Amino acid sequence: MDSKPITLGDLAREIGGELVGDGSRMITALRPFDEAGESDVTFLDPKNAKMVAALPGSRAGAVIVNKTFGLPSGMNAIRIEPPHLGLARALAVLHRLPRKELGVSPAAHLGSGVVLGERVNVYPGAFLGDGVRIGDDTDILPGAYVGEGTGIGAGCVIHPHVTIYPNCRIGDRVTIHAGAVIGGDGFGYVPEPLGDGSSEPFRHAKIPQVGRVVIEDDVEIGANTTIDRATLAATVIGRGTKIDNQVMIGHNCTVGRHNIIVAQAGISGSTDLGNYVTIAGQAGLVGHITVGDRAVITAKAGVTKDVEPGKVLIGAPAMDIHEGRLAFKLLQRLPDFKKKIEDLLRRVKLIEDAAGGTGGEKKPE
Amino acid sequence: MDSKPITLGDLAREIGGELVGDGSRMITALRPFDEAGESDVTFLDPKNAKMVAALPGSRAGAVIVNKTFGLPSGMNAIRIEPPHLGLARALAVLHRLPRKELGVSPAAHLGSGVVLGERVNVYPGAFLGDGVRIGDDTDILPGAYVGEGTGIGAGCVIHPHVTIYPNCRIGDRVTIHAGAVIGGDGFGYVPEPLGDGSSEPFRHAKIPQVGRVVIEDDVEIGANTTIDRATLAATVIGRGTKIDNQVMIGHNCTVGRHNIIVAQAGISGSTDLGNYVTIAGQAGLVGHITVGDRAVITAKAGVTKDVEPGKVLIGAPAMDIHEGRLAFKLLQRLPDFKKKIEDLLRRVKLIEDAAGGTGGEKKPE
Amino acid sequence: MDSKPITLGDLAREIGGELVGDGSRMITALRPFDEAGESDVTFLDPKNAKMVAALPGSRAGAVIVNKTFGLPSGMNAIRIEPPHLGLARALAVLHRLPRKELGVSPAAHLGSGVVLGERVNVYPGAFLGDGVRIGDDTDILPGAYVGEGTGIGAGCVIHPHVTIYPNCRIGDRVTIHAGAVIGGDGFGYVPEPLGDGSSEPFRHAKIPQVGRVVIEDDVEIGANTTIDRATLAATVIGRGTKIDNQVMIGHNCTVGRHNIIVAQAGISGSTDLGNYVTIAGQAGLVGHITVGDRAVITAKAGVTKDVEPGKVLIGAPAMDIHEGRLAFKLLQRLPDFKKKIEDLLRRVKLIEDAAGGTGGEKKPE
Repeated sequence: MDSKPITLGDLAREIGGELVGDGSRMITALRPFDEAGESDVTFLDPKNAKMVAALPGSRAGAVIVNKTFGLPSGMNAIRIEPPHLGLARALAVLHRLPRKELGVSPAAHLGSGVVLGERVNVYPGAFLGDGVRIGDDTDILPGAYVGEGTGIGAGCVIHPHVTIYPNCRIGDRVTIHAGAVIGGDGFGYVPEPLGDGSSEPFRHAKIPQVGRVVIEDDVEIGANTTIDRATLAATVIGRGTKIDNQVMIGHNCTVGRHNIIVAQAGISGSTDLGNYVTIAGQAGLVGHITVGDRAVITAKAGVTKDVEPGKVLIGAPAMDIHEGRLAFKLLQRLPDFKKKIEDLLRRVKLIEDAAGGTGGEKKPE
Repeated sequence: MDSKPITLGDLAREIGGELVGDGSRMITALRPFDEAGESDVTFLDPKNAKMVAALPGSRAGAVIVNKTFGLPSGMNAIRIEPPHLGLARALAVLHRLPRKELGVSPAAHLGSGVVLGERVNVYPGAFLGDGVRIGDDTDILPGAYVGEGTGIGAGCVIHPHVTIYPNCRIGDRVTIHAGAVIGGDGFGYVPEPLGDGSSEPFRHAKIPQVGRVVIEDDVEIGANTTIDRATLAATVIGRGTKIDNQVMIGHNCTVGRHNIIVAQAGISGSTDLGNYVTIAGQAGLVGHITVGDRAVITAKAGVTKDVEPGKVLIGAPAMDIHEGRLAFKLLQRLPDFKKKIEDLLRRVKLIEDAAGGTGGEKKPE
Repeated sequence: MDSKPITLGDLAREIGGELVGDGSRMITALRPFDEAGESDVTFLDPKNAKMVAALPGSRAGAVIVNKTFGLPSGMNAIRIEPPHLGLARALAVLHRLPRKELGVSPAAHLGSGVVLGERVNVYPGAFLGDGVRIGDDTDILPGAYVGEGTGIGAGCVIHPHVTIYPNCRIGDRVTIHAGAVIGGDGFGYVPEPLGDGSSEPFRHAKIPQVGRVVIEDDVEIGANTTIDRATLAATVIGRGTKIDNQVMIGHNCTVGRHNIIVAQAGISGSTDLGNYVTIAGQAGLVGHITVGDRAVITAKAGVTKDVEPGKVLIGAPAMDIHEGRLAFKLLQRLPDFKKKIEDLLRRVKLIEDAAGGTGGEKKPE
């Protein structure tokens, strides 16, 4: 953790928080609760009971906390809502690293007609295909591959071993983490008769995928995530959307703006997501559906049809969260239901027998 | 989208379709419905209501469609069944790119005893270990790694950052997408007592994985998919099988011919699949089972035992699709069942009380 | 399968097993059951009925088997418990490959201040950032990336296209398979109002992830697995833990010692696992929970709260295995329950009607 020193008062101002205590104290880093010393600021999540209990013993020089938490007397602090915003901003201030100025490594490969903006770094082992365009202040890290004709905007970071297939478009301030694959072929085949009297009646003929992927500005894509190119047009990831590791997004999808897509989620081809949608971890969506704005698909849910704006879904196949929670709760009560049904059958039989067995004879099944 | 021009009549002949309208019209590309112009052919999926509604306004020079769809008068078309086969073939005709002839980049690494066929391209940063053999017309893209002693057939494309471990066998016309890992160690350990009186009673001793992976002809493997090498013999992927992104296939599996395995599915070790099996997205299979020909494992299903040929399974643990659909439907009716059971209990109690409470006393539990 | 010859007697001694038959027979390899010849040893899993049935016809020179299996007369063998431990040890003896001594390839990149131990191999295309330290006898394979300031211990193997981000710590005898990503940014954002009157009320502001990943000794990590760096402190993988392919471990997690984490499992941020925990394939754990020692999370389970030591969980949301199995069994009996409830309703109505319909009138809902 490299860092740069600042007074607590200046830090409070820079992050838009309210200073409590000694504004002249020098702060050199933001450190975890149990490692922070006198020249460090730390972060208190008021919902974290362990942290709260440990606070009086902390040696931290100051703490970033929400507006209402009751601090021990004498504790310096910066109050801000939500406190995680204070954390994000303070880390950006204290641990902002200067970009290296390496330029283009001679051990990188640049194809013909490559156009680089100002202050672009291309690390050893990176490969830029013919006609690639890279905007200002973008880093292409070791071993990253950018296919022919792809354009990348300004202020991007393309991490090691990222593969971007040809003819894709990446916006500004996009970060793509290691091993992600953008623009691989969509998974499209059509049965084609083999007609040679073999025991194999047909093969899966490939539908060539000649479309592209468009990633808009301010998107972040996690490690080993894959986003397939469209068959004809474009798979689109909207502005400000954040995608975690090992997510799979199929061909022809349109993902809206400011979505959150958590690790190992999968979105099948030709599905469209609105804005501010959340897809939690390991959730899966079938293809050719539409998910409305602000919908939340919870972890491991399996979504099989259109989702209205704002809906929260749970389970596979996915249900409305209230129905679903009730269903799962009652699922665990099935042994009790079974017992009650058996008890009822026995008691009703007794009643019927006592009445002469006329009214309740069971219909033959 | 590079493309090569052709008359509509020639295109119809080349793809085996039936020409409707002006066969002399020049076609330069296949474009999406809303982008196609007069010299483009487009594709109409008759099941896509949006497309169908937009058809009369389309400026496309011609449309590929099925045999029965009612076209607007004056619209040029190629009719073919299934229409997606026409799409696949027309893209292959119009967007077939000539392979580059680069030969072996001086920035690639070739080990000793490497044998290359005719017209092989090895891009910068690719690594071919000692004794690797590569067939004619195969492309090894930047950063791909082919371990010692591995053989790759003719007409293959090994995309960037693919890793093929040593001593594997890849057939002809195999495409492996970026980041896929073929032949990594199977996940096999055996508890071994530590016997040093430590608080850690045992460690997981590794079972060395000295087998290999065999990929037969005409297989396509998606980005970031992993297929582990066998412990002793071979993990086999049968001819014509298509595997999507982020699929995991464990050691010692035998996958049959012409299977379809969709993204994020996982197949545990020593499981065997027949031919024409479909494994949908995020499905999982335990190890040491057998799945019969033409079985379909639907999305997110969890298969725990052998599957008969032609069966369709749903859910986790997996059920026959009819049983499963009914079970999931009734799962959502549990609140209603609960209410009915409570109602019955109340009513039966009333009847028993009215009858003197003798017949129905509840047994103590 | 390279191998080195040894007498059966010596092999029995080296693996700690009991010799049966001709100890002077030369053994050159351990081969699969149906490929083994006279100079090979093979392995018999007594639970594998197919193998057991085929044993009398095997041409293997000897067989590794458990202590009680009834061998055909005249069959040479090594008896050991558990037999898989014999398999592991025999493979290590017979197929132990000598490490190559390549040193540092001129086609690798070494940053300033890199410190290498004895007998380190750095293959072509590998990248070691400034200040990286590598212990003795470690292999850095082609295209592996080790970020600035990261330390790797002795006896490690870092496979092709592995990415280790800056400032991580890798212990001794750690194997990381191809395409794994260690130390990518944790997935942490906080909503930040955009306040520019746009139709987009907020953006997801990134919480910089300035912590690290610590991998302890004797850990093995599978292909394309991702382990994110902590926000402030460390994501820790404990000694002896084995992780399969395509596993996702979120930021701030602490994974204990000797855990087994199977393919495609996902562990959300800030979750802590004890020792000897098993997480089966495609299971998922929410964040901020604790899993006790020796707990077992079965395949596809979705764990939403703390897990006590030794508990076995099944299903999503996860239940105790006994409850869960019963619930899933009864789920399939819902059609029967439905029928019984309907039958009861009919019969009770008949009884009530016969009694004058006074006692059982339904309350309005």
